[in-house]
Amino acid sequence: MGLNEYDVIVIGSGPGGFTAAVRAAQLGAKAALIEKSLIGGTCLNFGCLPTKFLWQSLKIKQKIQKSYEYGFKANLEPVVFADIAARKDKAIAGIRKGMIAVLSSYDIDVIEGAASFKDRNTLAVLGAEKKEIFKVSADKIIIASGAIPSVIKGFVFDSGKIINSTDALNLKEMPANMLIVGGGAIGIEMATIFSGFGCCITLAECENCLLPNEDREVSEEIRRNLLRQGVEVLVSCSNALDQADKYEKVLIVTGRTPNSDLGLEKAGVKTIKRGFIETDEFCRTNVSNIYAVGDIAGKNLLAYAAQNEGAVAAENAIGKSSIAVDNSVIPQVVFSMPQSSSVKASDFLRYKDVIFGKFPFAASGRAFIENERAGFVKCAVDKTTKKPLAFWIVGSHSDELINIASQVIKSSAEQISRGSIFHPSFSESLFNAYEDAFDKCVELTKKSGN
Amino acid sequence: MGLNEYDVIVIGSGPGGFTAAVRAAQLGAKAALIEKSLIGGTCLNFGCLPTKFLWQSLKIKQKIQKSYEYGFKANLEPVVFADIAARKDKAIAGIRKGMIAVLSSYDIDVIEGAASFKDRNTLAVLGAEKKEIFKVSADKIIIASGAIPSVIKGFVFDSGKIINSTDALNLKEMPANMLIVGGGAIGIEMATIFSGFGCCITLAECENCLLPNEDREVSEEIRRNLLRQGVEVLVSCSNALDQADKYEKVLIVTGRTPNSDLGLEKAGVKTIKRGFIETDEFCRTNVSNIYAVGDIAGKNLLAYAAQNEGAVAAENAIGKSSIAVDNSVIPQVVFSMPQSSSVKASDFLRYKDVIFGKFPFAASGRAFIENERAGFVKCAVDKTTKKPLAFWIVGSHSDELINIASQVIKSSAEQISRGSIFHPSFSESLFNAYEDAFDKCVELTKKSGN
Repeated sequence: MGLNEYDVIVIGSGPGGFTAAVRAAQLGAKAALIEKSLIGGTCLNFGCLPTKFLWQSLKIKQKIQKSYEYGFKANLEPVVFADIAARKDKAIAGIRKGMIAVLSSYDIDVIEGAASFKDRNTLAVLGAEKKEIFKVSADKIIIASGAIPSVIKGFVFDSGKIINSTDALNLKEMPANMLIVGGGAIGIEMATIFSGFGCCITLAECENCLLPNEDREVSEEIRRNLLRQGVEVLVSCSNALDQADKYEKVLIVTGRTPNSDLGLEKAGVKTIKRGFIETDEFCRTNVSNIYAVGDIAGKNLLAYAAQNEGAVAAENAIGKSSIAVDNSVIPQVVFSMPQSSSVKASDFLRYKDVIFGKFPFAASGRAFIENERAGFVKCAVDKTTKKPLAFWIVGSHSDELINIASQVIKSSAEQISRGSIFHPSFSESLFNAYEDAFDKCVELTKKSGN
Repeated sequence: MGLNEYDVIVIGSGPGGFTAAVRAAQLGAKAALIEKSLIGGTCLNFGCLPTKFLWQSLKIKQKIQKSYEYGFKANLEPVVFADIAARKDKAIAGIRKGMIAVLSSYDIDVIEGAASFKDRNTLAVLGAEKKEIFKVSADKIIIASGAIPSVIKGFVFDSGKIINSTDALNLKEMPANMLIVGGGAIGIEMATIFSGFGCCITLAECENCLLPNEDREVSEEIRRNLLRQGVEVLVSCSNALDQADKYEKVLIVTGRTPNSDLGLEKAGVKTIKRGFIETDEFCRTNVSNIYAVGDIAGKNLLAYAAQNEGAVAAENAIGKSSIAVDNSVIPQVVFSMPQSSSVKASDFLRYKDVIFGKFPFAASGRAFIENERAGFVKCAVDKTTKKPLAFWIVGSHSDELINIASQVIKSSAEQISRGSIFHPSFSESLFNAYEDAFDKCVELTKKSGN
């Protein structure tokens, strides 16, 4: 350690910051973690985890309601949404406690408050109303301050009628109806969950389809499933907010804005578009002792990408090696019902002679067993080398299955081996979709014309 | 085609034979498939599929009974096992119909009866009491006749008190109690299922642990879970049958015997130990136009390995290339509750400097979300290269997760990338177990002594 109190200070305890702090401590550093809100950041407290808890409760509700499909008779008593929400809050508090135990086991100082740079080694920790409490210093600083829900001009989040995703996840009872503005991943998840618990949902997207950056077959399948669940879906709809008066709640989920209000100018840290911090492949900012990871660096805005960056930043700040982040193959998952996922080779667009295969879960024995026959696996293959290049999966378990696809693509495998996939599983549908690209899937009837 | 009616005849319509017949037809062959029982063979009718249907119903039953854990109140009416069994039978008939549709779409002749060689190109098809009905001939013959439950000397399967796995899967009501002899995969699955539906089970294994060829931690975890479910587990017990009188049913699941009663001597096909047919890596028998795949070849006795061999045999019999079977990395799955799975590099035992990592699902956020916190992931890593060499997973979804491990090991990956695994998922526990091998898992508290 130099003249500073800590080897490293991490700002923000979300997936990126938490990983950075623990990894730094594992490498022998004396580390501190500054958090102005709840340990775990957006992911644990206002994002990935709470949505999945609610989604999982919905899934169980549907299973009970369809128990006759498995040979049972079960009666579900009226659902009290407050009970569902309470379970989520209790479980998240439990996970938070687990994270604090990890930090404590590594002797990482957790400092409550908001951080603001004084210079490139010094941070002021601010309490309420940004009143300075004290200063701390470190040789290396890793910024993992995350992002917050973006606002739309003219609309103010009031935690009452106009709400953001954090407010929505804190609801204790279901409103009669809700307009959700934004048909990306978060909008789709919220529409799925709240509609499942009895709220009339209108989901509005200004582009001409949901998930505009996703494969059209996937986006269309999600739209169909939402319609089936009773969600009103409006696309090419840029004026949804004109009708805001008609709804009890209006949830705006149109993107995320970086939490860059950190006095970055005092340390000379450069930001780019909309306040995200510029970083290189080693997670370094333009200031040599300062790193940035996760949402604040604006590269992926995904918890697992942030975790990867957090570990790399700590290794580079504390360790002896210089490691580049490899986030080249990153799966994307949306918790629609059923789930929807995709993953692509990083150079996918470079391939010119691509063929496609598709396998519907309706043809899967295992999907029959679980009564989860909706959806499909779609696979893109390089015609010449037979290398699988991309997978899209809509269907039950796709959030786990997509990780198989990630590994296949990551390894640049030149085929998928039948013998290495268990039968009967959902996973084998990836193999079947791959074989279908060559018209060689044995579990589908012959295509006409072949 | 030569002088024979068919390019290829396949004997047996289980996973290996079905795949072989369809693949041969895809390659342009005129193919026939001879089946003496039900299309789909053991896997569909008396093995993998029926057990999974019953297991899945049990899983749903448990979810309903634990619905309060998700914030619901649900009442389950008394379970009628006959309804569960009927659902299974109906679904399996549906899947069988789907397989027949595939065969039909490829113009594959399905011949009902038992096959018996007359010479290396000719088969007699036998009806009841092995009475010859007619003869068929083919240039190439692929034997996929499977295996049947082994008997124990002195005990005759009478479909009444002394039963085999086929009989067990045909039960329409639960006996009060049952002795299961054989603590391998089938015995464990049967004990799990029938005990879950209210039958008092004693599971007896003559070796000193369940699944004697599996990792001891896995075998011990399965034993503990069975005990928790109320199963009496006896190990090092070679005289269980002495107590047969005490039980309403005695289920013997002590291995499989090849279905080699095919007049193989008339074609000159060589068999090895216990009647299995000897094959090379191209699935060829010692007779140049005759191939054998799946259980009858005695290599893996797993449906997916058989499917792989079936495709390879068809390619080699009909196609122009000579393809070797690659079943080097094959996952193993047991439907205990929760499921248990493993996969190893084919040269696992060659590695001398192996380190281990472990991650309990109790520390997984996603497992918390699903209330599926039992079990763990264990990972073996080569200390020098950091290459993952083997995974063992006891836990919910392990039958799907193990396929991720297969792909990692199959590709000889030198690490697992955090960014390529979705969060929050069960899958990320594989990454965490891998990192734990280096004491670098950030989701576990620091180990004492580090």
